[in-house]
Amino acid sequence: MTSGLFTDLYELTMAHSYFRRGLDNPATFAYFVRAPVPNRRFLLFAGLDPLLEALQNLRFTEEDLCFLASLGLFSRDFLDHLEKFRFSGEVWAMEEGEICFPGEPLLLLTAPRIEAQLVETLVLNLLNYETLVATKAARILLAAGPEAVVVDFSPRRDHGREAALHAARASFLAGFHGTSNTLAGKLYGIPVVGTMAHSYVMSFPDELSAFRAFAEDHPNPVLLIDTYDPIQGARNAAKVAGELAAKGKKIAAVRLDSGDLVSLSQEVRRILDDAGFPEIKIFVSGDLDEYRIQEFRRRGGIAWGYGVGTRLGVSWDLPALGGVYKLVEDEKGPRMKTSPGKISIPGKCQVWREEGFRDLVALDEEGGEGRPLLRRVMAQGERLIPPLDLAARREEVRQTLFRLPPGLRDLSPEENPSYPVAYSPGLRSLVDTGR
Amino acid sequence: MTSGLFTDLYELTMAHSYFRRGLDNPATFAYFVRAPVPNRRFLLFAGLDPLLEALQNLRFTEEDLCFLASLGLFSRDFLDHLEKFRFSGEVWAMEEGEICFPGEPLLLLTAPRIEAQLVETLVLNLLNYETLVATKAARILLAAGPEAVVVDFSPRRDHGREAALHAARASFLAGFHGTSNTLAGKLYGIPVVGTMAHSYVMSFPDELSAFRAFAEDHPNPVLLIDTYDPIQGARNAAKVAGELAAKGKKIAAVRLDSGDLVSLSQEVRRILDDAGFPEIKIFVSGDLDEYRIQEFRRRGGIAWGYGVGTRLGVSWDLPALGGVYKLVEDEKGPRMKTSPGKISIPGKCQVWREEGFRDLVALDEEGGEGRPLLRRVMAQGERLIPPLDLAARREEVRQTLFRLPPGLRDLSPEENPSYPVAYSPGLRSLVDTGR
Repeated sequence: MTSGLFTDLYELTMAHSYFRRGLDNPATFAYFVRAPVPNRRFLLFAGLDPLLEALQNLRFTEEDLCFLASLGLFSRDFLDHLEKFRFSGEVWAMEEGEICFPGEPLLLLTAPRIEAQLVETLVLNLLNYETLVATKAARILLAAGPEAVVVDFSPRRDHGREAALHAARASFLAGFHGTSNTLAGKLYGIPVVGTMAHSYVMSFPDELSAFRAFAEDHPNPVLLIDTYDPIQGARNAAKVAGELAAKGKKIAAVRLDSGDLVSLSQEVRRILDDAGFPEIKIFVSGDLDEYRIQEFRRRGGIAWGYGVGTRLGVSWDLPALGGVYKLVEDEKGPRMKTSPGKISIPGKCQVWREEGFRDLVALDEEGGEGRPLLRRVMAQGERLIPPLDLAARREEVRQTLFRLPPGLRDLSPEENPSYPVAYSPGLRSLVDTGR
Repeated sequence: MTSGLFTDLYELTMAHSYFRRGLDNPATFAYFVRAPVPNRRFLLFAGLDPLLEALQNLRFTEEDLCFLASLGLFSRDFLDHLEKFRFSGEVWAMEEGEICFPGEPLLLLTAPRIEAQLVETLVLNLLNYETLVATKAARILLAAGPEAVVVDFSPRRDHGREAALHAARASFLAGFHGTSNTLAGKLYGIPVVGTMAHSYVMSFPDELSAFRAFAEDHPNPVLLIDTYDPIQGARNAAKVAGELAAKGKKIAAVRLDSGDLVSLSQEVRRILDDAGFPEIKIFVSGDLDEYRIQEFRRRGGIAWGYGVGTRLGVSWDLPALGGVYKLVEDEKGPRMKTSPGKISIPGKCQVWREEGFRDLVALDEEGGEGRPLLRRVMAQGERLIPPLDLAARREEVRQTLFRLPPGLRDLSPEENPSYPVAYSPGLRSLVDTGR
């Protein structure tokens, strides 16, 4: 169950006022990201499934209502209204894993005004974070290239346990190969992966004993070779590989987690090759992100795979996505806020994707050409789509990602970010008249 | 209950290996932050209470064990061992809200090696995030000054719902006055606060009607005046204040959320004063942090209070804290890793705070002078301290904060960060010999 109290207090005080005044006609809110988004040429939409689940299970428990009563802000009949609360709205949204852009609605939610207002915090909290991490993960994959294995190592630096679950989910959706987060493996069916820690190596008299023990206890181990000295570590790994070969067993890879990864990876490759183990792969980790992976490859670093932690899970170079949730239509028609520098998208819209990632945002009645990106996913508070098949969707997303046009695939920031989003004549005229 | 599966897979594979080899003697791990920490002259330790609770409730359910069995990595007897898992270790830690520094242990955990290894991810996840936010909140308070009211508005941009709860808790611990997060209010007893959204104003025919309605429905309202035009908004607020005065009622404050906050706050102050309402306060928000608040005040901005959201909850200029959890002692004595650039603190230590925030880290047997910062908070898996009285502790933390020496209070980055931490002769000789 999701507590209805997970909301900013003002959502409740505003809802209270709407309730007192009978202002509860259906209203439509749009979730979108304002341009420009620093260092991002596209976004990857994520978080919809967790949001739909939370909306369906949103309740105010007796305990919640007692707490609200204790604040002395709410009338008894409003609290009674909340006790019966069930989300009954309609939701249109892009599919998770869709490439999308600032300035276009990613989700539209229509519900009685009180409901639509109360869920604002939840919508923003869940969509902002998963979309942020999925986007970061997509960029990391683009840097690593389609052949590389890339996995999520972020739990220890994510912002709490739930964040770590969302990070594993969103990065897998984007195309990662797995996660170190065992619970995410159980909950989302994501492949779980792991190597060993320095403390394991230190738990044995010497590195060689640690490698032998780990290889004895695990099939196809990945050995961490930089606890003491990575070059000696590579030699020790080769030695153990030789011992294992006699028994018909193998080492899958060695891992480097510190130092100059480029030169170390080259030296380690040479040591393993010279020892007759060209099939032992090199896995690198240690504060990696898209910029560092790109640089590592440019400088000739050799890696079969990458473990990405801190900088993925907190989206280091852009730690929050400024997605907003704005009233766009109510019984009085399309609405927008006119404060300088903060525009809105008035009216119920569809986003039409034309060939090659050119989007047209058009009022529903205008129609458009190409593929409509917003689908009806919930009506009267019930899901209309099955839970996402994460593994299947991941395959599609990976394919789309590596076929993006070069201008979008480029990881460098643009001087004046231009997003391929156009507004229809009808929408433009609404925006111009400031309705 | 906390699922034992919230752990990196390698903790389980390493534990499995320890289990097979009977390597389960007590081992001590230290949680500490490596220097330097960009843009931070001190840290504020937080997250201990949530961690102790999680440790006490850590279990592997039948479902968890089925999942682990399905991975084909673990022996039946190891899974049986996990089924009986209860954390039985001892924990020494600093008090939450303690000012602390990189290079000194903030927590020491001693437990049978398997237990100590399995909880690594949990320890790091919870302590890294709350300490990160508490530190950011402390800096924001220093910028706002002791007279200002500062509240947490971060839920919509935090990394999931749990992150928002930790952000509310950690910022209140540091000295914030409240949070917009209603659930955090219920769970932690933090004062909940809120104003109104632009969508509320837009739900009425015009701003004046919206203000009148909100003031009628709420005692001492805070009116958001920048939906259309903040200057006209201030005039409308003054008008409503005049109408309310006739009924013996008041407006508490007006809120500015966009535009040039400095000049707007000055103009709005003039309008309210001229209209005879010097007691109506000005509350500002909108992508604030310590740097922007400092600049706002320096340029003569006028505010009674600040709402801080995005940049607090994700700690915008430092979105993750690189705290680590390292083996420091086992049955073979003090231990440390010797990889270049990554040092450790070998041995069981105490941190002694001498006058004016000078810390000495010394081996237990060496003793020290001043106040010992590490207290025993858990033994044999049971808490030795009561749950934190958050409100009382907050008062103490605020007092300490505003009395910090100028060198620590300064918000600007240091060229070569120097932390007031010294190592005792015994510790230094261990580090030098690379034990």
